[in-house]
Amino acid sequence: MARKTGSHSDITGPRVRAAALRLFARQGYAAVSMRGLAAEVGVQAGALYLYTPDKQSLLFDLMKEHMDDLLAAWAIEPKGEGPLARLEAFSRFHIRFNLERPDAVFVSYMELRNLEPENFARIEALRKTYETELEGILKAGQAEGLFAVPDTKLATLALIAMLTGVTTWYREGGRLSRADVGQIYWDMVRKAVGA
Amino acid sequence: MARKTGSHSDITGPRVRAAALRLFARQGYAAVSMRGLAAEVGVQAGALYLYTPDKQSLLFDLMKEHMDDLLAAWAIEPKGEGPLARLEAFSRFHIRFNLERPDAVFVSYMELRNLEPENFARIEALRKTYETELEGILKAGQAEGLFAVPDTKLATLALIAMLTGVTTWYREGGRLSRADVGQIYWDMVRKAVGA
Repeated sequence: MARKTGSHSDITGPRVRAAALRLFARQGYAAVSMRGLAAEVGVQAGALYLYTPDKQSLLFDLMKEHMDDLLAAWAIEPKGEGPLARLEAFSRFHIRFNLERPDAVFVSYMELRNLEPENFARIEALRKTYETELEGILKAGQAEGLFAVPDTKLATLALIAMLTGVTTWYREGGRLSRADVGQIYWDMVRKAVGA
Repeated sequence: MARKTGSHSDITGPRVRAAALRLFARQGYAAVSMRGLAAEVGVQAGALYLYTPDKQSLLFDLMKEHMDDLLAAWAIEPKGEGPLARLEAFSRFHIRFNLERPDAVFVSYMELRNLEPENFARIEALRKTYETELEGILKAGQAEGLFAVPDTKLATLALIAMLTGVTTWYREGGRLSRADVGQIYWDMVRKAVGA
């Protein structure tokens, strides 16, 4: 069914995606029904199909949107000059971006298993593009003799896992501000690459 | 209903837990029914209740077993003398232990949200006990002037996230053996703590 245009769907589309993200994060993809999603949005089940053909499309759209936003935000992030400044920019950016959307981070990791093969390949390609950004910084620092990294591919995966982990424990109003956390993690990242 | 004892349940109990872990990892806790679990085990739905009172107990048992096994294995792991040797032992142990049970690692992280409050508190306490092992090593190294860690609590969480991340990408038969990965990650951990 063709997607509706105009003010009604412009408002409902984002509401559907927000409700889907919330439910997928809380219950898991397999446990969410289109009927349950419609109830969460506050529309009839049939009305949902004006906005999305099925649950798989919705999951893929959410995960693609998350990766597109991540890549677009990194593209315009001020990065400074040289590998060390760029590594610092990446570390602080990654923590800040992910802390702002913990549900999307959780769903993006957890529901990879529920993407159909073609959708999985497209999301994996976007993840790879993002990883290549960090690996490029590490390779440049390595080439200039600034970093001492035994394996830039593994260092990329290790650093991203370390930085993303903040979303699993950070609580607003705790003993550390986001800026404090960014500073402490940057110190560990810098040391980890031998800079 | 009382749990059956004897050879029949001694065999079926582990099969039920293995099937539950497999289904929780593949579909998510909320999507798994006791009926579906019985089918996976190859018994009648009613027979499952001889082994577990409900799905929540099964999830809790799996997560508790994982943490108990982790703590027991770490307790008997050869650790060497001093904070640096102990940090190396911890890093290699954590990767090795988790690579042997990726489903349990995945479920233990993903399904925390589905534990009832009292069960959650018990699992959290076990996780905290494990984290305290690493934090103790970091504090000892800090006290001896061997490590330069800005915040031992955050360094603990950062290192565990980094090491656990291996389970998300490691594939048997790839370009690196488990021992190679252990060596490369140990190099990064050592540097990250300023040793």
